[in-house]
Amino acid sequence: MSKYFSKRHTGLAPYVPGEQPRGGFIKLNTNEAPYPPAPAVLDTLNPGAASCLNLYPDPDGTALRAKLAAYHGVDSCNIVLGNGSDETLAFIFLAFFDGSHGVAFPDVTYGLYPVLASLFNIPYTRIPVGDTLDVNVEDYIGIDRNIVLANPNAQTGIALHIGEIERIAGTNPNRVVVIDEAYADFSGFSAIPLTGTYENLVVVRTYSKSRFMAGARLSYAIGDSSLIADIETVRRSYNPYNINSVTLAAGEAAIDCGDYYTEHWRRITNTRDRTALAMRALGFTLTDSSANFLFARNRDIPGAEIFGRLREGGILVRRFDSPERISDWLRITVGTEGQMEALIRALESIVKRGGAYAKK
Amino acid sequence: MSKYFSKRHTGLAPYVPGEQPRGGFIKLNTNEAPYPPAPAVLDTLNPGAASCLNLYPDPDGTALRAKLAAYHGVDSCNIVLGNGSDETLAFIFLAFFDGSHGVAFPDVTYGLYPVLASLFNIPYTRIPVGDTLDVNVEDYIGIDRNIVLANPNAQTGIALHIGEIERIAGTNPNRVVVIDEAYADFSGFSAIPLTGTYENLVVVRTYSKSRFMAGARLSYAIGDSSLIADIETVRRSYNPYNINSVTLAAGEAAIDCGDYYTEHWRRITNTRDRTALAMRALGFTLTDSSANFLFARNRDIPGAEIFGRLREGGILVRRFDSPERISDWLRITVGTEGQMEALIRALESIVKRGGAYAKK
Repeated sequence: MSKYFSKRHTGLAPYVPGEQPRGGFIKLNTNEAPYPPAPAVLDTLNPGAASCLNLYPDPDGTALRAKLAAYHGVDSCNIVLGNGSDETLAFIFLAFFDGSHGVAFPDVTYGLYPVLASLFNIPYTRIPVGDTLDVNVEDYIGIDRNIVLANPNAQTGIALHIGEIERIAGTNPNRVVVIDEAYADFSGFSAIPLTGTYENLVVVRTYSKSRFMAGARLSYAIGDSSLIADIETVRRSYNPYNINSVTLAAGEAAIDCGDYYTEHWRRITNTRDRTALAMRALGFTLTDSSANFLFARNRDIPGAEIFGRLREGGILVRRFDSPERISDWLRITVGTEGQMEALIRALESIVKRGGAYAKK
Repeated sequence: MSKYFSKRHTGLAPYVPGEQPRGGFIKLNTNEAPYPPAPAVLDTLNPGAASCLNLYPDPDGTALRAKLAAYHGVDSCNIVLGNGSDETLAFIFLAFFDGSHGVAFPDVTYGLYPVLASLFNIPYTRIPVGDTLDVNVEDYIGIDRNIVLANPNAQTGIALHIGEIERIAGTNPNRVVVIDEAYADFSGFSAIPLTGTYENLVVVRTYSKSRFMAGARLSYAIGDSSLIADIETVRRSYNPYNINSVTLAAGEAAIDCGDYYTEHWRRITNTRDRTALAMRALGFTLTDSSANFLFARNRDIPGAEIFGRLREGGILVRRFDSPERISDWLRITVGTEGQMEALIRALESIVKRGGAYAKK
């Protein structure tokens, strides 16, 4: 740390992203899609379309916001764009949370939430999930706190039902409730329709998972126009041209290719459910994931051992040291069918030799 | 404003970007290049290169940072990447400025500085430029303040000499001195070599102006490794994947095409100097611009009149209402030779009919 670093940030521990090796691994660690974006998306990435790269992008992302508005059945004034949902979340934290009104989220959830809160000096509370790793809805009813919930939840893949989201939003009317729907396209339902009724509800969406465009960096938030205008004020004050023109064009094309995506979402969820069955047959415990990943542990073999063995075999999954009680769990992105067959074969071999790696 | 908006941001006035109309104008208002990026840059934007768009980009931008390090004669640990220099500046403001140590910058400079300071609750001081719009170096010597200077200065195009930057950095050793070099490639000199000596000096660079890639959103900061590590901590805490993979690849290709850029920088500065001569012949007063724009006023015709008349004729330039004493000045991006000839013809016609628009 340099002697110039602001004392505000003493002890700030940045978010640690999953490993991003180039090649050499079956990469099941950061919940990307194993399929490319729709062909029409790739068509937007050509020298012709990029010939205006010398000009600034549209700072309002007008065309993309109109397309997203039509897709979700809202108005353009209900949408603000971001350079990946990490940025959209940062804008929301800056806009609505502060020293007087902190934020609450589950202890098992996306690891960036506490980091963002620390960065902006926002007090936060981690509400423990239950023994089955479920978010206990009652913990969020009428607590008069700003709330952030990933739904389906990051790490576990467990989804709250729409009625539960509605109760949480409805019983905290003076605070902002953020639903991070990074994985919602795989669960088949969304809180977006509720944003017309609850002016304190904001839903965050990303192209990284279900639009197969983690490399393009694109996200958006949907909510009441007044709430969105506040986020827009922060965005404009921070980086008015936050989305590049190539990504804006690709983002539009992806929405036009609905069939490609619904077909591939089905393919991914089918692969997920088949893989879960096979893992249970091998003695693994799994959460009931509605996302594009599985969350699993083995009672006899420590998570770190399985992680290491898979890595040696060229399969990259994700494990979290904190909180301690999920340190034996592995988060496994749903890859192609072939990749998941390779995973199952590797797990079979690890389980067979389990004795050598058994918990002490 | 919604009832949820943090009281911290009451009165926050976002930066207003220049108009970004699509087509229909000779667009000389936001200092973009009139030329496309180098052909090899466009080659990076193709479906083949983008086939890995489903995967996250390298969060460290390893290859691009290595290329930039070699180009600037520094190490990779001296470089942190940003999604446009607005973001890099935001990271620097967050890292080093706070309630105890605010920041000073000229009153005539890039309009985002006070907006960023307001967004993060950082006290700031605007130091007036002189009557000739020059930054008075003595105002920054030994003031024990964090300092941000655009060099060449935004709006005016006037550049401080490298020895002046060195005195400012050297006499404020306990505070951070930020040199925003958005336009430095057009001036021909940079403070980057000083960063090896002054551990409090950080230089911000962007691809928007001199790499003809405003649409791609790419920037970086160069400084002492300890200072850069602090900015990196903020970046990682805010948005670990802030640069998309297409832009990372394009950014590398641009550095490989040195000849293309030096040739076009010469072309732009030649066009700038010829245009300045022609405008002086028409009775305009101009600053001595070392950037890719001119800053000019006419003693007899209000700036708003000239701006409006040019706009009617399909030529878009930029005018600033604040501070009031530059409200009669126009900032004109250097376009192609043909575009500047059209500008001169339009100005000739406005000057001829000057009586009708004369100041009252």
